[in-house]
Amino acid sequence: MDALLTDIQAIVDPSGLIRGEAVGQRINDWLSGAPCRATAIVRPTDTQQLAAVMRCCHAAGQPVVTQGGMTGLVHGGQAGRDELVISLERMTAVETLDPLDGTLTVQAGAPLEIVQQAAASQGWHFPLDLGARGSCTIGGNISTNAGGNRVIRHGMMRQHVLGLEAVLADGTVISSLNRMLKNNAGYDVKQLFIGSEGTLGIVTRAVLRLQRPTTSENTALLAVPGFEALTSILNGLRQRLGANLTACEVMWQSHYRLLTEELGRHTPPLSADSPYYLLVEAQGIDQQHDEQLFSAALKDFFEAGWVSDAVMAHSGAQRQALWAIREDIEGLIQALRPLFAFDVSLPIGSMPGYVETLECELAAVRPGSRLVVFGHIGDGNLHLSINAGSDDADTRQAVERLVYGPLAALGGSVSAEHGIGLEKRDYLALCRSPEEIALMHTLKQALDPKGLLNRHKVLPFIACSRQEEST
Amino acid sequence: MDALLTDIQAIVDPSGLIRGEAVGQRINDWLSGAPCRATAIVRPTDTQQLAAVMRCCHAAGQPVVTQGGMTGLVHGGQAGRDELVISLERMTAVETLDPLDGTLTVQAGAPLEIVQQAAASQGWHFPLDLGARGSCTIGGNISTNAGGNRVIRHGMMRQHVLGLEAVLADGTVISSLNRMLKNNAGYDVKQLFIGSEGTLGIVTRAVLRLQRPTTSENTALLAVPGFEALTSILNGLRQRLGANLTACEVMWQSHYRLLTEELGRHTPPLSADSPYYLLVEAQGIDQQHDEQLFSAALKDFFEAGWVSDAVMAHSGAQRQALWAIREDIEGLIQALRPLFAFDVSLPIGSMPGYVETLECELAAVRPGSRLVVFGHIGDGNLHLSINAGSDDADTRQAVERLVYGPLAALGGSVSAEHGIGLEKRDYLALCRSPEEIALMHTLKQALDPKGLLNRHKVLPFIACSRQEEST
Repeated sequence: MDALLTDIQAIVDPSGLIRGEAVGQRINDWLSGAPCRATAIVRPTDTQQLAAVMRCCHAAGQPVVTQGGMTGLVHGGQAGRDELVISLERMTAVETLDPLDGTLTVQAGAPLEIVQQAAASQGWHFPLDLGARGSCTIGGNISTNAGGNRVIRHGMMRQHVLGLEAVLADGTVISSLNRMLKNNAGYDVKQLFIGSEGTLGIVTRAVLRLQRPTTSENTALLAVPGFEALTSILNGLRQRLGANLTACEVMWQSHYRLLTEELGRHTPPLSADSPYYLLVEAQGIDQQHDEQLFSAALKDFFEAGWVSDAVMAHSGAQRQALWAIREDIEGLIQALRPLFAFDVSLPIGSMPGYVETLECELAAVRPGSRLVVFGHIGDGNLHLSINAGSDDADTRQAVERLVYGPLAALGGSVSAEHGIGLEKRDYLALCRSPEEIALMHTLKQALDPKGLLNRHKVLPFIACSRQEEST
Repeated sequence: MDALLTDIQAIVDPSGLIRGEAVGQRINDWLSGAPCRATAIVRPTDTQQLAAVMRCCHAAGQPVVTQGGMTGLVHGGQAGRDELVISLERMTAVETLDPLDGTLTVQAGAPLEIVQQAAASQGWHFPLDLGARGSCTIGGNISTNAGGNRVIRHGMMRQHVLGLEAVLADGTVISSLNRMLKNNAGYDVKQLFIGSEGTLGIVTRAVLRLQRPTTSENTALLAVPGFEALTSILNGLRQRLGANLTACEVMWQSHYRLLTEELGRHTPPLSADSPYYLLVEAQGIDQQHDEQLFSAALKDFFEAGWVSDAVMAHSGAQRQALWAIREDIEGLIQALRPLFAFDVSLPIGSMPGYVETLECELAAVRPGSRLVVFGHIGDGNLHLSINAGSDDADTRQAVERLVYGPLAALGGSVSAEHGIGLEKRDYLALCRSPEEIALMHTLKQALDPKGLLNRHKVLPFIACSRQEEST
């Protein structure tokens, strides 16, 4: 390893290589906050440096883990003792904005929020948005195919990537920096690197598609008396707000009541006795007219009995206060510690039955358990927060089985937007067929035959146990 | 071959196998109308039959070509004498529409128009649309990542596919029929089969994402005095119509004048002396308000001097009459025979210079040549129709070089939406790097090591000439 590190240092300069105790001052994981255990952290400043580093690593058979903003939730950026971390923290440039075609070229280490601001400063809008925007990076967003709050309108990260550049395990640079909205010239190889969590290549740069900003915003919180009413509202919103509907976030009573009345972290804008709460947002280009449409829809929903109470935001502060309830992950963690957090998708119509059954089974298997539910209902995506008394391995496994078990029969997914990483690897086969997983292995084998890139992540390896991996 | 065909007939029944003279009654190619030359045409009725057929073909090393509606423009469905055609014409079922999640599951042989109608009959909308809608199939749309007229609003086919099922060269069925809007569980293997033109697998079924239908429609034809005005209008439309902007189609004067004044195929709604014409369409959910927004934008564009004359459609018939000028491919073929048709993308700002240079160079290389230009300007996509006096191989090559040559430096593409097929294979390297093409070969090798699926298409094979391929 020493000879390899000497070679790498010659490529990236001493400032590009972190060794010894300084490595442990970094985290291994956002969730645990445990110190990084890698041998060293390599910080290239450009694609050529990274390619040279990977050529050395490939020759030496040295496994690497790529790290972005380290805000992932499935241990996808976690490194073992014998691994090198590739950090893109010195590759953060926002390179070119094309104002006519509406494209933005950036280095992969650029934080999402910086990219959003760069677009906004020139009259454009980059629509991907999530809570970790200040820390998470574009490269991480690409590698995990990030979702977030505006998917119902704008899609996930995959839809925003026109082109990208990636370094393969052997140091080959795949420069696929397409800026065209339409390009059917050959296989769309960039798709390989989107959502594959750094296991097929290291994303170094990307061309992002920008949108024109909207100028109107309407936000409301609705108290909803039942699930059928909830789906009626969802259908009504799709029909009546059309493409302006940008968010449709559900909170089960468990979530709303906990964060308002119970913990007192938020003044409840509506009483906490409804079974469901819906946070609805529409963005358009004509405030007066859009507000009329929005209010008229809510009024009709109210008259139809689908909404029992509602509050509309009349200022940015009110809007933020409504979102704060939905987004108060800190409050959830604090109240439910030790917390298991899940991110699943399933058909919307199956949601109430799924949640109800889960609640019953949790109570049977781990009496006193607590289940709190919110999610992006328009996307079929629920986030489940569970306290089952303990977070030991047995409890975790028991809870995981209850959460993931029913998804296969429902045609759902064990990961809607967080990815697989290490966290869900053993459950991948629940929602992917053996043939699909075999094909994933074929791709991994074709692109990274030595298994150097983010090894053990995403794909189940039958021969290796978790213990071996964490050395 | 006879033994193989006997085995295949046992799988698909006599009705599923076409042999002998009946094969030649089918076309080999939409463009030439030449008779099909394949050994036989295999028509499975379901995925299991097709898988069994491919297991036989794989064992025998038998190459196959998959055919959908045969409306492709790059010879992607053309079969050689020693190949079998796999036709999905008996796999046309529209299977399930989920009204809550908005998904539609169909067999790959279903024609696009049938799928559009199936969605509409249950209050939904499938937004992909192109001229060949009556004949082209969903499987073909997927395999070519079809574009069409509404890409600026709805994206290409890739965006509409939630899940798919495909049969690999060895008969393995990859069932990836995801119905979730969000599913980050492992590699998104379906992407491999979208836009790879049947070279990596045979798409057999798909889950499509539906949209809510719009209820308003505004269409206008604008005469535009210059290219700068054209881009100002495009930017203005994006800003003022937001997500409602569904089409922004440009016609150079060459196109508009030919099809109206010159050929007299269409009564010119505007005089034919403007350099550019823009067909603009917006779809929304509030006819009165949307029309106000639309008219107000056009009025302001007129006052800014960006529009010299305009006509708005006030009925479905008027709307169709405007679209008919833009979509009159038959007129183009008739007037420009022998015709070379091209489909390229390039940065919008580079378009006028590119077209002007091309016109000059054509005149120099093939005096008397004629160039007619239209396209989807919002997508950066131009369609070029060229008559250069002859369609012999030398002329073709000379024209191709002029059309494709400048695209590399501009960051454009030799294929925006038609694909590569055989037609553009020799030019792929103009807009893809050697590393990208090597990666495409790696994928082909990994998924179809015997090279049985739609061989010679898409990827350049240095060792084989066109003559060898057409045996």
